[in-house]
Amino acid sequence: MSSPKRFNGVLAPVITPFKADLRVDKQCLAKHCQWLQQQQTSLAVFGTNSEANSLSLGEKVEILDHLLASQIDPAGLMPGTGCCALSDSVTLTAHAVSLGCAGVLMLPPFYYKPVSDEGLYASYSHIIEQVGSSDLRVYLYHIPQLSGVPITTGLIDRLVHDYPDTVVGIKDSSGDWANTQSYLDGDWPDFRVFCGSESFLLQNMRSGGAGCISATANVNPAAIVNLYLKWTQQEAPQWQAELDQLRGVFQNFPMIPALKAATAWYSGDPQWCRVRPPLMTLSEEHKHSLASQLDTIGFTMPGLTAV
Amino acid sequence: MSSPKRFNGVLAPVITPFKADLRVDKQCLAKHCQWLQQQQTSLAVFGTNSEANSLSLGEKVEILDHLLASQIDPAGLMPGTGCCALSDSVTLTAHAVSLGCAGVLMLPPFYYKPVSDEGLYASYSHIIEQVGSSDLRVYLYHIPQLSGVPITTGLIDRLVHDYPDTVVGIKDSSGDWANTQSYLDGDWPDFRVFCGSESFLLQNMRSGGAGCISATANVNPAAIVNLYLKWTQQEAPQWQAELDQLRGVFQNFPMIPALKAATAWYSGDPQWCRVRPPLMTLSEEHKHSLASQLDTIGFTMPGLTAV
Repeated sequence: MSSPKRFNGVLAPVITPFKADLRVDKQCLAKHCQWLQQQQTSLAVFGTNSEANSLSLGEKVEILDHLLASQIDPAGLMPGTGCCALSDSVTLTAHAVSLGCAGVLMLPPFYYKPVSDEGLYASYSHIIEQVGSSDLRVYLYHIPQLSGVPITTGLIDRLVHDYPDTVVGIKDSSGDWANTQSYLDGDWPDFRVFCGSESFLLQNMRSGGAGCISATANVNPAAIVNLYLKWTQQEAPQWQAELDQLRGVFQNFPMIPALKAATAWYSGDPQWCRVRPPLMTLSEEHKHSLASQLDTIGFTMPGLTAV
Repeated sequence: MSSPKRFNGVLAPVITPFKADLRVDKQCLAKHCQWLQQQQTSLAVFGTNSEANSLSLGEKVEILDHLLASQIDPAGLMPGTGCCALSDSVTLTAHAVSLGCAGVLMLPPFYYKPVSDEGLYASYSHIIEQVGSSDLRVYLYHIPQLSGVPITTGLIDRLVHDYPDTVVGIKDSSGDWANTQSYLDGDWPDFRVFCGSESFLLQNMRSGGAGCISATANVNPAAIVNLYLKWTQQEAPQWQAELDQLRGVFQNFPMIPALKAATAWYSGDPQWCRVRPPLMTLSEEHKHSLASQLDTIGFTMPGLTAV
């Protein structure tokens, strides 16, 4: 196994389908992953939009094993492995590395707050040391509106200094471009900065960023990948505007239930609507409104089918 | 096994000792639990102050098994079983009930936010239905400054209406007496309201509350129990003032590391100072300052020894 390349491009925080008893439908998930990979999208399974923090460690291990057994290429996998419990983060990260995943997206521990940069350094450092693999590639995850625990440039300075071949990038889901820019300005060789929404994709690429890891890449992967690949072309601002328009529709609704409702609609598989508590399925009224708005702009998810 | 009685009195969110490799020292924990039970304090293991959200599900199951094997009485155990992942909450709660724990303290799922009361109802309801035991007694846990997810009176109305023999109380760690009063004013028969700090103990008892579940019950159990038992006596305000003075000392420092430093100091076991990242051990400067302040007020932890 060769040493993993650093990621760039478009990644989807893959939505997770549930059966009627709320168990994960691994077969359906693998199929969605295959569809996403066909659109040249890499897979940030176990992201926020995957409802990953509503899944147990055991469920995540089983899912990863199933995806590998379903011919999902681990070179395109960046599972979220940052858990609340230090011991879970070690176990899940080690498992991802053992399967050949090219990277992991690592939330900070997100219950205790405020925590010091020193405490966060100790947490990341402990995980890296315990996993103890030269194949580990960590992408940090800044999403303070949910985690309550920001990733500062001071913390990154220290981690990149001590683990230059391991801590190799970050996802910024703050929605605050000034914060993204502060990461892009960091003096960290070949550090990969991903924006957490394709709304910032053109700006990120023009500023030396690596791509995006975005909720709506679950439903609109081809168009986002197109902008990523052709961002230097003259039509790029127009493509960005089209991406923004679709993103805007989804932002009119609770994002995760809306992504699932659209996937249910275009795949013909109503099971996709299901979420795990504490999230709630989109209301019938919202479902109709979403479908109508998507119809108006001529949106489709070509090639998507039910399992 | 008879049906569990509802809790009242003083509970300690038991601090968790770690070995040098950051594994839980179960033997030392059991000994601390025994010391607390000797002071008529019940045990809210896996609370916030237990660093429970830095422990994996598997570690928590092992700890509970070890405590029962160490002659800890499950009638005095109220483990925290509300996890981020719905499936973990089901597993841990079912395990606690199977061991005869008289109650569980249940955080709401705390990553996704904002969540609706309907989503929280669905979460608690799913756990209760999946555990499916008439011996389950759930105490809700309101600590919005860490969970980001408040427990509203509307949610309690609905849970108590649908599960009157199961959802039987709440711990209010908000530090906002008006919020505690709103729980005490609820029309819920025999609903047990615990304040999250002994600073509110006298006020809570005078208002019909059930007791307190407090960090500092780890170090000052006897005096807190004394006020709980004798709150109608004339000296009660003086006892409350003495409790407040000690609590005030600990509140000058990060609470969990300070509780552990004091326990290390008075037991003679320096291992107690250790915390799991993202928390950090109290600095040497803080340790000396804490010891000096405790010494000044003549504080001791009688009967506490090293393992």
